[in-house]
Amino acid sequence: MNKYKLTLAYDGTLYGGWQVQSNAISIQSLVEKALSTALRTPTSVTASGRTDAGVHARGQIAHFTAHHPLDLFRLLHSLNGLLPPDIRAVHLEEAPLEFHARYSALSKEYHYHLHLDPVMDPFKRLYSTHIHTPLNLTLIQEASQLLLGTHDFTTFANEASAGSAAKNPIRTLSRLDLLQEPGGIRLEFEGNGFLYKMVRNITGTLLDIGRGKLTAQAIPSLLEAKNRKIAPAAAPPQGLFLVKVNYEKVQRSL
Amino acid sequence: MNKYKLTLAYDGTLYGGWQVQSNAISIQSLVEKALSTALRTPTSVTASGRTDAGVHARGQIAHFTAHHPLDLFRLLHSLNGLLPPDIRAVHLEEAPLEFHARYSALSKEYHYHLHLDPVMDPFKRLYSTHIHTPLNLTLIQEASQLLLGTHDFTTFANEASAGSAAKNPIRTLSRLDLLQEPGGIRLEFEGNGFLYKMVRNITGTLLDIGRGKLTAQAIPSLLEAKNRKIAPAAAPPQGLFLVKVNYEKVQRSL
Repeated sequence: MNKYKLTLAYDGTLYGGWQVQSNAISIQSLVEKALSTALRTPTSVTASGRTDAGVHARGQIAHFTAHHPLDLFRLLHSLNGLLPPDIRAVHLEEAPLEFHARYSALSKEYHYHLHLDPVMDPFKRLYSTHIHTPLNLTLIQEASQLLLGTHDFTTFANEASAGSAAKNPIRTLSRLDLLQEPGGIRLEFEGNGFLYKMVRNITGTLLDIGRGKLTAQAIPSLLEAKNRKIAPAAAPPQGLFLVKVNYEKVQRSL
Repeated sequence: MNKYKLTLAYDGTLYGGWQVQSNAISIQSLVEKALSTALRTPTSVTASGRTDAGVHARGQIAHFTAHHPLDLFRLLHSLNGLLPPDIRAVHLEEAPLEFHARYSALSKEYHYHLHLDPVMDPFKRLYSTHIHTPLNLTLIQEASQLLLGTHDFTTFANEASAGSAAKNPIRTLSRLDLLQEPGGIRLEFEGNGFLYKMVRNITGTLLDIGRGKLTAQAIPSLLEAKNRKIAPAAAPPQGLFLVKVNYEKVQRSL
């Protein structure tokens, strides 16, 4: 048996998210269909985590196994012939048998793009959230720093499903930077793991702080409360990109 | 009577082009509908020129007239409330009565984006043309320089419609630059006017030259032949952006 690590980029606009579900086309189902066709055997993939409907990825990672060694160059080419153009297989490599796209991840990086021009650039409409009211970026930056470190992030987590409330809600947010980019800013998040909707929920709260509806100093008590209901609504999905999943360097002695 | 100059940006992906036509939704029809609603009177617009189905614009210019002076700030806001999000009214100003979006134009600028990474970036799929085979950029640059100047561009012009073959096919191409950008290159065209499909037809020929199917030295004889049929096919629409239309500086003494 051989294990493979697949890097995917996708425009999430038209999909119901990564995960296979009954009411919308999922990215996972299309990747599994392409892979199963290319390998001529039913093949399932496991991702580093799901992305929601409308959320994009530049570096989603998924693993799968095959019973025979694969021609990586040829398979990558076949996958891109079989996948729709808004989902691309960017890179494919062999991984150690113990590699797991989700459990082997050391950290993940997300970017959230905020488009701040008075008139929306139509080419950014599907890839950023447009805010045409003034935002105080200094306050957002101040609040960001209060979120860094290891916390119980329950206040910023939705329940993924009925059975998942018991999960450990402690995460370490190691980086939350605000960077200028043409037409706006982006928030760069890096952490050892993110709870369900955590990046969008944090962004929604930072937006309210930037609008002056909430003070930066409210962050510690919001965290302390461990209550999703007291924090502002999530920011919309289209501004969010899963950019990179970091793993330990794979030893070359496969 | 007052005349107004409107700057529009649009993602052409979903439309049948600028011009009103029977078989697809045109951008012009949506702009006229929004303007007529906002002004509460049927209002038509005249653009600097049409863009084809799938072609984008960052700085399309259109003029229209109104019988009363308009509140420009308010109208711009109303238009963006009435237009779909992939069409934006970027700027609105009063213009002299003799201003004409098409006939007053001194020059136009188009960009054509070529995406050259081996695997296509899914976020560029609607806004560039992906070429995964090697291109010799030096040859493209060499050929570009042979297109500069005043020529009969019949070889690079499609007939716009049955009656339009008699138009003057002499145009001056003042600039055709090749610039590197992330993931590929863009060709920047500037000229005093462009014939129907001229930018895409020139790009198609430059692509064949970059692939080695045609030599750069073929350009003068292609121009000389004045025959569309002997030149390569047009490049696809989604790589093309109308970026800017240049006019004489408007005098402030309106």
